[in-house]
Amino acid sequence: MARLGFIGLGVMGRPMAKNLLKAGHRVAVHRAREDVVAAGGEDGKSPAGVAAAADIVFLMLPDSPQVRDVALGDGGLAGALAPGRLVVDMSSINPLATREIGAALAERGVRLLDAPVSGGQEKAEAGTLAIMAGGDERDFREAEPFLRAMGAPTLVGPLGSGQTAKLVNQTIVAVNIAAIAEGMALAKRAGVDPAKVFGAIRNGLAGSRCMEDKAPRMFEKRFDPGFRVSLHAKDLANVLEAGHGLRLAMPFASQAMEMLQVLMNDGFGDLDHSALAKYYEKLNAVDLGTADADD
Amino acid sequence: MARLGFIGLGVMGRPMAKNLLKAGHRVAVHRAREDVVAAGGEDGKSPAGVAAAADIVFLMLPDSPQVRDVALGDGGLAGALAPGRLVVDMSSINPLATREIGAALAERGVRLLDAPVSGGQEKAEAGTLAIMAGGDERDFREAEPFLRAMGAPTLVGPLGSGQTAKLVNQTIVAVNIAAIAEGMALAKRAGVDPAKVFGAIRNGLAGSRCMEDKAPRMFEKRFDPGFRVSLHAKDLANVLEAGHGLRLAMPFASQAMEMLQVLMNDGFGDLDHSALAKYYEKLNAVDLGTADADD
Repeated sequence: MARLGFIGLGVMGRPMAKNLLKAGHRVAVHRAREDVVAAGGEDGKSPAGVAAAADIVFLMLPDSPQVRDVALGDGGLAGALAPGRLVVDMSSINPLATREIGAALAERGVRLLDAPVSGGQEKAEAGTLAIMAGGDERDFREAEPFLRAMGAPTLVGPLGSGQTAKLVNQTIVAVNIAAIAEGMALAKRAGVDPAKVFGAIRNGLAGSRCMEDKAPRMFEKRFDPGFRVSLHAKDLANVLEAGHGLRLAMPFASQAMEMLQVLMNDGFGDLDHSALAKYYEKLNAVDLGTADADD
Repeated sequence: MARLGFIGLGVMGRPMAKNLLKAGHRVAVHRAREDVVAAGGEDGKSPAGVAAAADIVFLMLPDSPQVRDVALGDGGLAGALAPGRLVVDMSSINPLATREIGAALAERGVRLLDAPVSGGQEKAEAGTLAIMAGGDERDFREAEPFLRAMGAPTLVGPLGSGQTAKLVNQTIVAVNIAAIAEGMALAKRAGVDPAKVFGAIRNGLAGSRCMEDKAPRMFEKRFDPGFRVSLHAKDLANVLEAGHGLRLAMPFASQAMEMLQVLMNDGFGDLDHSALAKYYEKLNAVDLGTADADD
């Protein structure tokens, strides 16, 4: 039986850890939540405690600083993991940070795989997350059976490639949602029902998963997350930090970041990212809701 | 048997007119092309001649000035069509121009329906265009059987609504293609194979018809049209003219327009709009092609 560790039991991490338990694995956790312990999780008390009890440690943390701290900080994994152990970082962080942390762990003989996810809480619970992995193929094969308990993993390339794929994903999603809101604002201002426009164009080249998921939310003002504005802003901050670190100009990602920043300033950070509609509503004094939407 | 007219036998108009003929209708055309005459089209010699021979006249012209000229200019439709006749403008033009032309035709008792299309030459030939219509429901019902010979029509709203839906479509498509190129440039610069990223994210929230159609073109440098950069720039010019005419700020559409302008300046106006990849390649000195792409 594999000895696993899981650090980061937030909205995403809890169902992911529970899916590992459900698949029959031993899982030591840090800061154990009741539901995870009830599902069989063992309280490792600290990152070092988790490290001592596990052959593979999974991380699901907010951002680069937290991953760096848990991996390399005082009482962190680096000092506690035996050489040859594997860390699988499923957090969404800056791929440059991933490579730095990977190099520091490698000095201790510890291997790192990055494996950020896409799909949100619902797919985390269902165990159907998209998992974009980066690292050595051998390490990926070792982690793959466990990743499969949480979703569908794809090896994209060397260490950091999973994070890079995630950033590409988040760039395209943010910009496409904004473009949908921008287009629908034109329809509304021109006196045309945006929902009718959606019906006319959804099966053409403009059609997308974003349009199917987000356009109806805009019309019905259903901004319960889903994926939060504040988390998407965090991801776009990593996009721009990574891009600019590589001397890459990203005009659309930077503009989308400004839009998310305005939404957070207006107190909408906890809404679903389809609330980009609210940015356009404010910008253009237009209302994208259909007549019967409450708000 | 319906007496139809068709004005505008370009790359799109020719197969559309031939599909009307194939459906068994009489079609008078202006500036008859050999293949259309061979298919049974009658040469009306001039817009007025077409008007005299037809109960419903379809237009498929480059832009607003050409539609205005054919509809209202010397020897145009307005002077030649009997009151009660119907004009169906399938060109992609500014919806404000559509309403002006509609009002001028209405003074002569002539009705106008706007019905721009999406789908390109291939779908024009197959008779499977998406057709976004605007106008009175009664007029739409009258034109619908003929529109069905060319594709799938949807009535979006009053006159101009079809054009507005088309502009929304073109906004979302241009911005999404650019976002895909922007994201893939980040992948390439970060040393990750963009084709692998495509494989990892295509089934997630970033997935779209644009991504399926355009991302492989970027990697393989297949920029044969498809839909031309210059035509998309024309559409975005109409987006911005319509939007700004309605006092609407459209930051992403205007930025996409600048990108298409740069491509045209570089001599790429006749390439497929997936050549937005070339904008990012120039901007960032990066090559989105896979190793075996020729170029």
